[in-house]
Amino acid sequence: MQTHQLGEFELIDRLRSRLTGGTSPRVKLDIGDDAAVWEPTPGTLTVATTDALVQDVHFSLETTGWRDLGWKALAENVSDVAAMGAAPRYALVALGIPGSVPVGDLEALYDGFNDCLQTYRFALVGGDLVRAPVVTLQVTLVGETLSPDGSFLSRDAGRLGDLIAVTGPVGGSAAGLRLLLDRAPLRPGDDALLDAHRRPRPRVGAARALIEAGIRCALDVSDGLVQDVGHICERSGVDAELDADRIPLFPPAVERFGDDALELGLTGGEDYELVCAGSPAAISLASSRMQAQREEGLFIIGRVVPRAGNGPMVKLRQPDGELRSMVRGGYQHFGGSA
Amino acid sequence: MQTHQLGEFELIDRLRSRLTGGTSPRVKLDIGDDAAVWEPTPGTLTVATTDALVQDVHFSLETTGWRDLGWKALAENVSDVAAMGAAPRYALVALGIPGSVPVGDLEALYDGFNDCLQTYRFALVGGDLVRAPVVTLQVTLVGETLSPDGSFLSRDAGRLGDLIAVTGPVGGSAAGLRLLLDRAPLRPGDDALLDAHRRPRPRVGAARALIEAGIRCALDVSDGLVQDVGHICERSGVDAELDADRIPLFPPAVERFGDDALELGLTGGEDYELVCAGSPAAISLASSRMQAQREEGLFIIGRVVPRAGNGPMVKLRQPDGELRSMVRGGYQHFGGSA
Repeated sequence: MQTHQLGEFELIDRLRSRLTGGTSPRVKLDIGDDAAVWEPTPGTLTVATTDALVQDVHFSLETTGWRDLGWKALAENVSDVAAMGAAPRYALVALGIPGSVPVGDLEALYDGFNDCLQTYRFALVGGDLVRAPVVTLQVTLVGETLSPDGSFLSRDAGRLGDLIAVTGPVGGSAAGLRLLLDRAPLRPGDDALLDAHRRPRPRVGAARALIEAGIRCALDVSDGLVQDVGHICERSGVDAELDADRIPLFPPAVERFGDDALELGLTGGEDYELVCAGSPAAISLASSRMQAQREEGLFIIGRVVPRAGNGPMVKLRQPDGELRSMVRGGYQHFGGSA
Repeated sequence: MQTHQLGEFELIDRLRSRLTGGTSPRVKLDIGDDAAVWEPTPGTLTVATTDALVQDVHFSLETTGWRDLGWKALAENVSDVAAMGAAPRYALVALGIPGSVPVGDLEALYDGFNDCLQTYRFALVGGDLVRAPVVTLQVTLVGETLSPDGSFLSRDAGRLGDLIAVTGPVGGSAAGLRLLLDRAPLRPGDDALLDAHRRPRPRVGAARALIEAGIRCALDVSDGLVQDVGHICERSGVDAELDADRIPLFPPAVERFGDDALELGLTGGEDYELVCAGSPAAISLASSRMQAQREEGLFIIGRVVPRAGNGPMVKLRQPDGELRSMVRGGYQHFGGSA
């Protein structure tokens, strides 16, 4: 069997089962969440994530400039760390490049790294630089929990009775990408969409509000809202109902794409908002804490419901009350049947 | 200017200069050594390294099987961590694969990971799995210092009066690779060379002996002995003299390749022995500690001498007493003038 015949998650499960040794009681969470979590010394928690970006698989230099690529490569890892309730601290970058790449382009890439390091206040401490047939970027980011009591956010902590909420509007990045792929003539206001795609802002401050309010279940919207809520359902053993008319949509996406904006918001990835599940009291408290930081607060979009079938299900309640099962629409790298 | 017109180290310096922000007082050592070092909480030290392996740049599936590839991908990072005086604890792997790779090959790769995790007792805690046009493997390994007082080993701590020593014989991996590339009919005894190439053993126990004996300058032999001693000279502001007849050569390499074994030992990489500089007393103490662990002890191969010219120089004393300057013969990825 070849790998393209398996879904990404199925393949990961098969490979993971080969690892019979080398566990550690200090590892609190390993393969399967946004990041790994371990306890280097009692009472402290370290979070670490790694992501690989391959040219023409994850990005195109036709739609992403080098400086924006630098930002995005670090930002997606900052978002994974935030999704664990942690702050970024130390990054390592392994960079593979063809020899024909101009040095100036790599300098622009590093300027993009620098923009993200300054904005989120963490350090690039090491890396590797190698030849490769296409541009490849692998970022590893180590973070520290924002919780004073050693708690973290994970996908498996959704409970019946929890509300589901998102930290901000979705669909902006997908709308910006659509503009770039359509090569449509740009209109006034399109800049906001392009910016949402090129410079997504991970929500470290919101992560702090969630974890301080006692929320323990969250992840970042990277594969698309429906698929990411599906990850919570899968790992928490529940289903979810989302209300279509409560999904906060990125206003410039609504202006530009009208009714299509909902589809972009439900299935588009890379907005790097956080989606969480928590008790009504915790959601309310987190929202107040965000507003105290002059942010908008949480948008409640649905609720956790009992598992109805064999597998996890995300249902979308239409404005007319009809409940529709969603095919999970996010991005799977290995295109299998999952 | 294109990147292939610059040497690897020159390019890294140029890129590093773009990073004006995002430093942290807790970072003790960043880009430029085998690994980064930071102090997450006072009195503790974390070490982290990352390496990228690209098919047909760093390995060939014609000479390296999948299971050995898994071992080597982790082992080279274990060696980088050992070279800092630390033990491996937590690994993350980002894997890029073409869709045509059979699942069984990836399972063999993970079996190789598992072999190394069990031997060196650390955990694979996370990763990423993506499509790529060729096989790419990026490993990040986080370790903890073996020193009770928060010391570590670095390249810049070589001092005048120091002896230079290596933890074991060199040239075995290069000899094994030569057999594979020559496709020569195998002879009895060649297995030891192939094993040295396919399953190099990083020296974590020796690293502990070095750091406990007060040695502070070391790195692992990954680029080739001469080039790696050159790294110590460059970073420590000194030159080095090595004695040709004291370089410990891997015995099966001498049997198989005769006089060529010295060249393999001086320029071949990937043996993962450690080369260190330390006072005669510290070298002697470290050697005793290694022998107490039933190891051979250190092999003294030369000494640190004052910087003679503008740049670092490694000189090789021939058996007839003649001192010859060595062109640094190790591997540079970007083929520039350095």
